[in-house]
Amino acid sequence: MYKDKILNLLRSSHSTFLSGEELARKTGISRTMVWKYIKSLEQEGFEIEAVPSQGYRIVVSPDRLRQPDIKKGLKTKRIGREIILLPEIHSTNAFAMERANEGAYEGIVVIAELQTKGRGRLGRTWISPPGNIYCSIVVRPQIPLHKAPLVTLMGAVAVAATVKQACGLNAGIKWPNDILLSGKKVCGLLTEMSAEQDRIRHIVLGIGINVNMHLDALPAEVRMQTTTLAAETGCSIDRTMLVRELLRSMDARYLDFLHDPASMLDEWRKLNVTTGRRVVVSGAGETLSGTARDIDNEGRLVLMLDDGARRTVAAGDVTIMKE
Amino acid sequence: MYKDKILNLLRSSHSTFLSGEELARKTGISRTMVWKYIKSLEQEGFEIEAVPSQGYRIVVSPDRLRQPDIKKGLKTKRIGREIILLPEIHSTNAFAMERANEGAYEGIVVIAELQTKGRGRLGRTWISPPGNIYCSIVVRPQIPLHKAPLVTLMGAVAVAATVKQACGLNAGIKWPNDILLSGKKVCGLLTEMSAEQDRIRHIVLGIGINVNMHLDALPAEVRMQTTTLAAETGCSIDRTMLVRELLRSMDARYLDFLHDPASMLDEWRKLNVTTGRRVVVSGAGETLSGTARDIDNEGRLVLMLDDGARRTVAAGDVTIMKE
Repeated sequence: MYKDKILNLLRSSHSTFLSGEELARKTGISRTMVWKYIKSLEQEGFEIEAVPSQGYRIVVSPDRLRQPDIKKGLKTKRIGREIILLPEIHSTNAFAMERANEGAYEGIVVIAELQTKGRGRLGRTWISPPGNIYCSIVVRPQIPLHKAPLVTLMGAVAVAATVKQACGLNAGIKWPNDILLSGKKVCGLLTEMSAEQDRIRHIVLGIGINVNMHLDALPAEVRMQTTTLAAETGCSIDRTMLVRELLRSMDARYLDFLHDPASMLDEWRKLNVTTGRRVVVSGAGETLSGTARDIDNEGRLVLMLDDGARRTVAAGDVTIMKE
Repeated sequence: MYKDKILNLLRSSHSTFLSGEELARKTGISRTMVWKYIKSLEQEGFEIEAVPSQGYRIVVSPDRLRQPDIKKGLKTKRIGREIILLPEIHSTNAFAMERANEGAYEGIVVIAELQTKGRGRLGRTWISPPGNIYCSIVVRPQIPLHKAPLVTLMGAVAVAATVKQACGLNAGIKWPNDILLSGKKVCGLLTEMSAEQDRIRHIVLGIGINVNMHLDALPAEVRMQTTTLAAETGCSIDRTMLVRELLRSMDARYLDFLHDPASMLDEWRKLNVTTGRRVVVSGAGETLSGTARDIDNEGRLVLMLDDGARRTVAAGDVTIMKE
């Protein structure tokens, strides 16, 4: 707590030096304790210049998430009531599912700096180097089972809105769960669920956003189809601000969702880059080609096949064809 | 293995005595070992009469499931490849879900003699005294999420067919998951699932059948609406035979189900006692009253409300009104 106070004072004084005496006075602790906390901040990755008779100032802040920074002014109602921030985890989704199985309440958020066994859809791997956001959110909506896929769509809308709000970039949603910038993947969502035949126990909404990672951390074949917010904007992104924006965006949409699960479908339609396009959809043992027409009220993709037949698809991998 | 051989020999000789010498010769072990296995069978609850110079015979067999008895001549393809038989467990479904989360393969079956925390639908308790069947089956069908409720319907069909086959009783299915005899509950099903947005990882199909339990083991308010196979037939039921029949019935229908998930809907329709009846359906914050017309291809109940409107219901508690 004192460490955060000192950090906040140093941050708000920007490049001006703050003396140890002043820091001690303003926080109400001894100068020795101030010095201890300065050392602790340095261990966290802050580079702090110390000049005798002038004091301290931050020279470099690490690109590292801190829980108090995220919580500062967050003011969400449901999502992020508790935030578990981990330097490293096998998978934020797996960790959040375990917590949810043990009874964790709705709105708990798990964020990790890196994942060693990041999960993608359909048992795939989500390569998870440092510099990105890996975030899993536990929700317990009382909706029928067949409406569960709408949670993924809601998540996609919240992420696309966050990218617009925080970086000014127009992200597009590719059905069902990819967020694209310049036609490349900048975010993926993985929804996992525990349910009975007629009741959802909990859903974990996993969100991986490519933010500041070096693209050469990825294998060549993945790199081609991947981008980051930093690459698109040309500058490093403040991930704290981005997480905060994400949680706010999710919170607002989730509260709407609880009121009416289909409420975000119009926003989804506006943000999506799938409908109206010629697509190939593979999955469930078949490959369909046709034109994506719309999504239905349960989030399924409505296709008009090349032979004119109408098909509704619940799951699959979509490839958008070049016009 | 030797114990099972001795048990089988004693069983097939019925009330005739079998000498220790004969048992030793036929099993290929010493008479001392025969005596040890006889003692072990007595510990399992068999009452074995031992008369010097005549030998042994079974007087009373315990009403207790034994794995080799269940497996004998089972010959199922998928369901019951492995059977875990437990004297007591918190919940067979919870236990099976844990095994499935750890990667247990499809078809594993968990059976317990009693449950200390038996689960019912919607977080309810399933009171689980000895004498019944508590059975959970792990399946991993590659079907879309919205077809998952069909697994419950398939389970209900398999149970109703088992009751007919094994006891000659015409059981009726009450949507979605109760099996009734004389209008009282004789079996309930609880389906639990782990899934991603577009893939089922595993489903645990939990089946509780009231067989030989004493109805006064139940609280009065539950007892009124409950019956057992023993109560309906007027005699104690061989639970081993019943479990074997259940697993066979499930196996046959599951293989059909994998081929075409809607294949058992006609059988369901024939066995069901819900459609055509006036019903009150409560759940999801509302209560509907009308006539149950049919189930749709995803297993949802189609209602015609009193005002003539058509409604499809995915979940709820159904009360069938007396005509």
